[in-house]
Amino acid sequence: MLHRTMLLRGADLGGTFVFAIEGALAAIEGHLDVMGVMVLAFVSALGGGIIRDVLIGATPPVAIRDWRYAVVTFSGGAAAFLLDPHARGIPASLVVTLDAAGLALFAVAGTQKAVLHGIAPLGAALLGTVTAVGGGVVRDVLLAQVPGVLRTEIYATAALAGSAAMLLERRLGLSATAAAAMGGGLCFVLRLVSVWQRWHLPVAG
Amino acid sequence: MLHRTMLLRGADLGGTFVFAIEGALAAIEGHLDVMGVMVLAFVSALGGGIIRDVLIGATPPVAIRDWRYAVVTFSGGAAAFLLDPHARGIPASLVVTLDAAGLALFAVAGTQKAVLHGIAPLGAALLGTVTAVGGGVVRDVLLAQVPGVLRTEIYATAALAGSAAMLLERRLGLSATAAAAMGGGLCFVLRLVSVWQRWHLPVAG
Amino acid sequence: MLHRTMLLRGADLGGTFVFAIEGALAAIEGHLDVMGVMVLAFVSALGGGIIRDVLIGATPPVAIRDWRYAVVTFSGGAAAFLLDPHARGIPASLVVTLDAAGLALFAVAGTQKAVLHGIAPLGAALLGTVTAVGGGVVRDVLLAQVPGVLRTEIYATAALAGSAAMLLERRLGLSATAAAAMGGGLCFVLRLVSVWQRWHLPVAG
Repeated sequence: MLHRTMLLRGADLGGTFVFAIEGALAAIEGHLDVMGVMVLAFVSALGGGIIRDVLIGATPPVAIRDWRYAVVTFSGGAAAFLLDPHARGIPASLVVTLDAAGLALFAVAGTQKAVLHGIAPLGAALLGTVTAVGGGVVRDVLLAQVPGVLRTEIYATAALAGSAAMLLERRLGLSATAAAAMGGGLCFVLRLVSVWQRWHLPVAG
Repeated sequence: MLHRTMLLRGADLGGTFVFAIEGALAAIEGHLDVMGVMVLAFVSALGGGIIRDVLIGATPPVAIRDWRYAVVTFSGGAAAFLLDPHARGIPASLVVTLDAAGLALFAVAGTQKAVLHGIAPLGAALLGTVTAVGGGVVRDVLLAQVPGVLRTEIYATAALAGSAAMLLERRLGLSATAAAAMGGGLCFVLRLVSVWQRWHLPVAG
Repeated sequence: MLHRTMLLRGADLGGTFVFAIEGALAAIEGHLDVMGVMVLAFVSALGGGIIRDVLIGATPPVAIRDWRYAVVTFSGGAAAFLLDPHARGIPASLVVTLDAAGLALFAVAGTQKAVLHGIAPLGAALLGTVTAVGGGVVRDVLLAQVPGVLRTEIYATAALAGSAAMLLERRLGLSATAAAAMGGGLCFVLRLVSVWQRWHLPVAG
């Protein structure tokens, strides 16, 4: 039991680290200074969870109560800042895979937390999606860009599908762990296949 | 009594539907995909009320607790997406009129909720205005645009005038229903007359 | 005791007034109308404290509960709007000095409030920084600009240094008043020296 809790915490901090590095690289590309890099690392990784916690009334958000989250994001930001040219050498396929894993993890964890706070299924699926993509949305807004998640690729859609699948499987009687694994797996696979197959959602007109 | 509650709920969901369609059309104009259209329908219609609920501590916001709000916004988003070229054929005067009705309704409902949560008059008038225009502000921020409400036309001003009038009339001894009707009516008329007469607020310099 | 409380309240409202004028001038420069000027005066001055209060669960935020804050920001907005060409004649050095004083005050007050709400040191320092710079970030986002605080000068860094110094001095046994004075002083001096010496944070690449 202790083992599983530690595993979950480790996975959560791992996803946070990946998202922080991605946020930091976006800040570097936007020519922000080192403080801007740290801020974007923080909000990219933790913004979604903070919005979720504020919406369900779980304040102060865990990202502010538990100092490890801030330390992990600042470590990610510092690593990206110091290793910048090398970081750009990381294969895109690895970045996409790690990002998909973080997306799946955050979607499932966010949905689970919403359910524990008594939110009904539709709201819980939306909050799981917000947990997964909210940080990236805030990051893009701070860079004065239309959030990429609103106009390209299967990204929020994968998070929403994973959240919804997890809730459906719970309803069908699966254990929380099995439902989370299947929902997260669906999100992960759907995201990777969509990148590989260059799937896009339809645009009107 | 039941009848009046149902009427109010119906009006609230009707205003939500109108704002959702407007948000979806803005998303379509910004070339967002269908997920972006749904997100903008949701935040345009419910963003103001969510900000109000978070600020007064009424979490989780009713827009997340009550699944009907999300369903109505996604229906509005889907309708706009599917009927896009036809939606553009709707007469502008009808859009402006329905929008003014939604604005008045949200301003009055937001002010009323703030008062019920013990907020003093000035704060309640501001929260009523935020309820009415907050969703449009978030929509414009997500489209990387300066919110239209900050630089054109009598829009937030109409909401603020309606909220303030409603609070003043309560102070003068009118019933809640009468004050709400008069405040909402002032907002609605002021908005329509300002469009018709091309009124603008002064700009400095 | 009463005297000191009144002094603190006066300083807080003074900082609010300075930030409101700065927000209003940014709005005027962005060609917003008088409603936009008032909104930017409000969010520039009070946005940081509102975000802090929402994050620590102290809702409704004091900026909405206590009508004096709104009145002070609208007075600042109106003064900037009416005196616009003259306001531009104010020496830049005075603006920078008053702004640095407001920054120091908000950083210290925000950190103190976070500590009183049981937030651990790292989170409290971050919340102090958010209190000091959050309003300016929201202002820049509403103007569809990348927040200046993310890419230029020693600004958030000065607030963070002041917050951290204050917490460290408390840990070392100083009284709350002495720690706040020293933390605030560090923020103020660091900000002014950095402007005078044209210090910048490093940018990657």
